[in-house]
Amino acid sequence: MSKTHNTWQGEAAAVVTLTFDVDAETPILAQGREYADHAMTMSHQAYGPEVGLPRILDLLDELVVPATFFVPGWVAEHRPGLAASIAERGHEVAHHSYSHRPPTSMTPQEERADFERALAVFDKQGIEILGHRAALWEATWQTGELVAEYGLRYDSSLMGDDRPYKVATAAGEIVELPVHWSLDDWEQYAFLPAPHIGSVIESPVKVLELWRAELDGMRHYGGLFNLCVHPFLSGRPGRAMALRQFIEYAQGCSDVSFARCGDLAAVAAADAGLTVRRPRPPEVDPEVYPG
Amino acid sequence: MSKTHNTWQGEAAAVVTLTFDVDAETPILAQGREYADHAMTMSHQAYGPEVGLPRILDLLDELVVPATFFVPGWVAEHRPGLAASIAERGHEVAHHSYSHRPPTSMTPQEERADFERALAVFDKQGIEILGHRAALWEATWQTGELVAEYGLRYDSSLMGDDRPYKVATAAGEIVELPVHWSLDDWEQYAFLPAPHIGSVIESPVKVLELWRAELDGMRHYGGLFNLCVHPFLSGRPGRAMALRQFIEYAQGCSDVSFARCGDLAAVAAADAGLTVRRPRPPEVDPEVYPG
Amino acid sequence: MSKTHNTWQGEAAAVVTLTFDVDAETPILAQGREYADHAMTMSHQAYGPEVGLPRILDLLDELVVPATFFVPGWVAEHRPGLAASIAERGHEVAHHSYSHRPPTSMTPQEERADFERALAVFDKQGIEILGHRAALWEATWQTGELVAEYGLRYDSSLMGDDRPYKVATAAGEIVELPVHWSLDDWEQYAFLPAPHIGSVIESPVKVLELWRAELDGMRHYGGLFNLCVHPFLSGRPGRAMALRQFIEYAQGCSDVSFARCGDLAAVAAADAGLTVRRPRPPEVDPEVYPG
Amino acid sequence: MSKTHNTWQGEAAAVVTLTFDVDAETPILAQGREYADHAMTMSHQAYGPEVGLPRILDLLDELVVPATFFVPGWVAEHRPGLAASIAERGHEVAHHSYSHRPPTSMTPQEERADFERALAVFDKQGIEILGHRAALWEATWQTGELVAEYGLRYDSSLMGDDRPYKVATAAGEIVELPVHWSLDDWEQYAFLPAPHIGSVIESPVKVLELWRAELDGMRHYGGLFNLCVHPFLSGRPGRAMALRQFIEYAQGCSDVSFARCGDLAAVAAADAGLTVRRPRPPEVDPEVYPG
Repeated sequence: MSKTHNTWQGEAAAVVTLTFDVDAETPILAQGREYADHAMTMSHQAYGPEVGLPRILDLLDELVVPATFFVPGWVAEHRPGLAASIAERGHEVAHHSYSHRPPTSMTPQEERADFERALAVFDKQGIEILGHRAALWEATWQTGELVAEYGLRYDSSLMGDDRPYKVATAAGEIVELPVHWSLDDWEQYAFLPAPHIGSVIESPVKVLELWRAELDGMRHYGGLFNLCVHPFLSGRPGRAMALRQFIEYAQGCSDVSFARCGDLAAVAAADAGLTVRRPRPPEVDPEVYPG
Repeated sequence: MSKTHNTWQGEAAAVVTLTFDVDAETPILAQGREYADHAMTMSHQAYGPEVGLPRILDLLDELVVPATFFVPGWVAEHRPGLAASIAERGHEVAHHSYSHRPPTSMTPQEERADFERALAVFDKQGIEILGHRAALWEATWQTGELVAEYGLRYDSSLMGDDRPYKVATAAGEIVELPVHWSLDDWEQYAFLPAPHIGSVIESPVKVLELWRAELDGMRHYGGLFNLCVHPFLSGRPGRAMALRQFIEYAQGCSDVSFARCGDLAAVAAADAGLTVRRPRPPEVDPEVYPG
Repeated sequence: MSKTHNTWQGEAAAVVTLTFDVDAETPILAQGREYADHAMTMSHQAYGPEVGLPRILDLLDELVVPATFFVPGWVAEHRPGLAASIAERGHEVAHHSYSHRPPTSMTPQEERADFERALAVFDKQGIEILGHRAALWEATWQTGELVAEYGLRYDSSLMGDDRPYKVATAAGEIVELPVHWSLDDWEQYAFLPAPHIGSVIESPVKVLELWRAELDGMRHYGGLFNLCVHPFLSGRPGRAMALRQFIEYAQGCSDVSFARCGDLAAVAAADAGLTVRRPRPPEVDPEVYPG
Repeated sequence: MSKTHNTWQGEAAAVVTLTFDVDAETPILAQGREYADHAMTMSHQAYGPEVGLPRILDLLDELVVPATFFVPGWVAEHRPGLAASIAERGHEVAHHSYSHRPPTSMTPQEERADFERALAVFDKQGIEILGHRAALWEATWQTGELVAEYGLRYDSSLMGDDRPYKVATAAGEIVELPVHWSLDDWEQYAFLPAPHIGSVIESPVKVLELWRAELDGMRHYGGLFNLCVHPFLSGRPGRAMALRQFIEYAQGCSDVSFARCGDLAAVAAADAGLTVRRPRPPEVDPEVYPG
């Protein structure tokens, strides 16, 4: 039933990459500087690095599972020890823009400047960066090229497949570790009226059910379960328990393995069987699709 | 308890038509050409024809069940082998507009031009077209007439019943295979912030429960279970598994049969017991209902 | 645990009034005459009187349970036999405005004219009217007075309690049979993008669970389970099955009784123990609450 | 697994503070004085103090559990006996603004005036006030300082932790009893189209599941389960039953205790192990985050 194994999968049917987007205040400030005056909203976001992150790091230690943390440069800069505290526990720290403003809202020059500024922060802190994820996943057609140009191994912002694939850019080939809305805790848990970031609060029981269903699908078809979790959301006690239960479920499946994104990207880069895509905008006739 | 059998039902209480709307990028571009610049969004849509569609075709082969694929002309044109690859597997390819812009947003001339342009694409590719579904189901009062005028057998855009019915138009009678929001995977799974296409991500477990409940209702009352699935949504591994489970459940019911839309429409056209409706706009007094 | 029985309850702990709002096209046209041009949307609404209503009438016959149908005057006028076909089956037909435009959007003169116009329609058709429900439940402070002035027994638009209560108006006392969002199928099932009438499609399994939970609460505390169902929504096969299951559940509870609204209002009017409320707008200081 | 016990927890792993926000009409009027003309909407809100509140007070008596009621000054003023009727049953009455207009929408002077006006109402009624919760939780950076300046013990509006913490302000230290969206019944139950206050109506079964999951998480990690319930929402029969079941579940856990907020704040104030936070706006470069 399932497809032929590719070497990126090793012996496993499905590979799980646990990824944590340590956004802190950035997605809120990106919607307007005035939200810095909202004390509750800022505390809602600060909970991520201050309470959720340590709890998640302890949980990963306890379950002995490696993970990848995508950190905006602004967050690493404003909380100087944060990136190092993650790296010290054996996890990967990766590039998640500087400001968390979506590339699709910037000029190419602005996107490049934001991209470089984050790299400079990590460089100054001695943190090795292997990969990148666009803010809000809102990559442009330039994004992959920046990733290649600056020598990173992989991007993790696109949704063109549910297995790793190669992206051929003008600056060379990179690996794409695709994401998806259904594997993101934001759509399940995020709620804030101002700025509006979501309007539904699901039960952890439903979220666990959803993730198990998708993992089981990937075990059947072979795929990359690239989970995206936010410490300000899933760091809450009941949700951390659901995350724990999900990891324990996956660990109990003999056909599932875990990897950090950088490690998986290295294996995938060497996999000759990987699909190569050349992302480019569709040709659009302005008479058919006006602006 | 259930109504008298009509000949369109054959021996079955409920008939299932599995339909797949292969929209690819069109519903997004229809909201603005500028979204062509959003690489992630385009990859989210390209997943449909590139990953979801082959997976679904394999699934249908495996379960030995026939289906109908509604394809916008733009998609067939930009991915030249796509329509043929569906027809070759024994499925029906049907008309789903050219651009996926809703008829209710067009002038009658524009709707006609878009309708014809899709027919020309399929004609050039040698694909026989028996039926039509309006983009977003947003048919006008002219739509059925176009379907009759161009010699198609059926339309599948209206919601006036949960059984096939005949629509009398100025250009002749056609069969309507009615749809409904509750039998569409879009409302359950679609999520994109820009453009906004939906805001809830349900678990496949809930979707399976919903579809089973509606099928059981149709087995009781007798009806057409006209399922509408999008490869960019239900092509995902966990959702494909739920689709599989739904089909297996229906196959396990001795009072359920499966049909391609075109075949069902042919049987229904010959059923003298079918309700005939003459769709026309309600008479509206502008003093009661201002614009 | 439960409160003292009032005479309106008879021997029961909870009384169920099954009410059906036969809105047809009116809630859509009230949002703009232009929607009359949307063929699918009109068919979605016409399903109510044409398919959902007969199915529901059959279901009520089969389960031998009386109900109340709130019908806008416009619907009764445009479908001449409709109100009579309901009354003939032993059910009550009640006043649901003429146009389904909400009173809070009208001037007092407009509200009165709309109110009278519906009464004239029913009068002409020989349908006795005992009670009223405001369109969208959006009553003004004048609404109850109109109900009393025109000699009706009850209103069913307010949410001030979960038991019947008396409303003292300048034109005399009427009975209020309160409604609530949680006992309305609209919030659970309604979906239309244009005009936007709702964005979630719940499973009938969830809806049954919700209604059972609320009925059990009312059996405990004593209350009026005033269910509001729309034939264009709950007339669908799977949802009609859930409605059936709910009614069967309630029928299986020895402490639950059923009543038509008019009959219940007559008993409640004679109940000296009923709370009397004198609805009036809160005193609002414009400096505290600007417009 | 769980952290070291702090003295604020006593012998328990998780402490439950049941809090009730008796908002009545204020959140609606804060969105526009014109809603005072909407009779149904006003009745929807009046249900809280008139029906929901007595039912909840009886429930708390029956289960012998203490609670805290946050009451806007406007509500206490317009319903003179309300605050006293709560205090007489042994519960705490606390400060919930005067008007329920969010502080983030006011000037500092307006926030101070609104804060003082509520205190004056309670002072006149002889109600002792120990703590404060901002309207919509929308505290500013000034809010905590006002709480300290006016000699209150605690605030309950921020989300910086899931355990009590100390907030150091220019006017002295106060205790913060943090809240969270997931422990609020508003996001689960609130529905009103105009003004729009929410769009989903969840089943009490789901809400009970959600709250149990979060309480179990807090029993594991140690935390404050600061539940926020609105009488106009959870006072409904089926929802009151779910609240009852939740309390009974918590009472059945030997590692859970209950407290009024003021009492818990007193113990927490004396806990030298409590985290101290100095809330202040993040430093924001206007070039990175424009307004």
